Amino acid sequence: MTSHDDLSTLAAQVGRLLLARGWTISTAESCTGGLIGHYLTEISGSSAYFMGGIISYDNRIKQKTLGVPEELMIEHGAVSPEVARAMAQRVRELLDTEVGISATRIAGPTGGTPTKPVGTVYVAVATPDCCQVAHHVWPEDRSGNKRLSAEAALRLIMALVDQTTE
Amino acid sequence: MTSHDDLSTLAAQVGRLLLARGWTISTAESCTGGLIGHYLTEISGSSAYFMGGIISYDNRIKQKTLGVPEELMIEHGAVSPEVARAMAQRVRELLDTEVGISATRIAGPTGGTPTKPVGTVYVAVATPDCCQVAHHVWPEDRSGNKRLSAEAALRLIMALVDQTTE
Repeated sequence: MTSHDDLSTLAAQVGRLLLARGWTISTAESCTGGLIGHYLTEISGSSAYFMGGIISYDNRIKQKTLGVPEELMIEHGAVSPEVARAMAQRVRELLDTEVGISATRIAGPTGGTPTKPVGTVYVAVATPDCCQVAHHVWPEDRSGNKRLSAEAALRLIMALVDQTTE
Repeated sequence: MTSHDDLSTLAAQVGRLLLARGWTISTAESCTGGLIGHYLTEISGSSAYFMGGIISYDNRIKQKTLGVPEELMIEHGAVSPEVARAMAQRVRELLDTEVGISATRIAGPTGGTPTKPVGTVYVAVATPDCCQVAHHVWPEDRSGNKRLSAEAALRLIMALVDQTTE
């Protein structure tokens, strides 16, 4: 179980990395529901790099507010690497930040399929240079899986922004 | 200090009230950074009423993405009853929900003024019938004040939606 302190420490590390790079960040959260934004804003001074985000919990918000193409959602499903990538890229454009981050997940307890079981999550990070998606299947309950998703998203930012800095 | 369990219990009560009323909800969060959305989505089945939200942490997002008029921000400041009200009303319209909720706050440790000290928060709830704003000044640290603001927002929904139902 990812603790509150673990996530706060990670969010602080992400903040230092973004400040060093001079980059801003925005979030497009589906099933994490705002948890990534919450942890980013636990850090004093985060207003220097965190601009905001769109919580696109309902698929209509993914389309209407974020601007993820309807065809992409129909072809691949809302929980897919393609949609995670589009969410991160769209929020980055809409909120005019260097980094965009997204998380889309089958939350459970219902909604799973044989190929995408409950706990399946895709997190994506888009930067000016690239966009990377990570796929996980979490074993915990709804709340635990949310925290694991937020942790995976923050770790992906660390990996990608650090790489780009070098 | 508002505990995790207190906020989860409140979020579940809000959920039951919205389901009974057949209403959907969206969030426009500033300094709570996603915490209200996080608690609403801790509840299994919340996708029936929680559509999503806009985290307008930076003032440009309040204007550009939420559509709060720039003149309102200049005249009253981003942390004001007028802007809290506009945020709740705008997100309600944008995300096409019956209820819109907002929180805007001077987070600290810097940024306070004699008339609006650090810890000052305005939370607003807009429904099809009315819009109500509550004003608080919280005594805790950044993280504690975020939780108190989320609690105040959830309590204001309870009061207002309950009232409207009767």
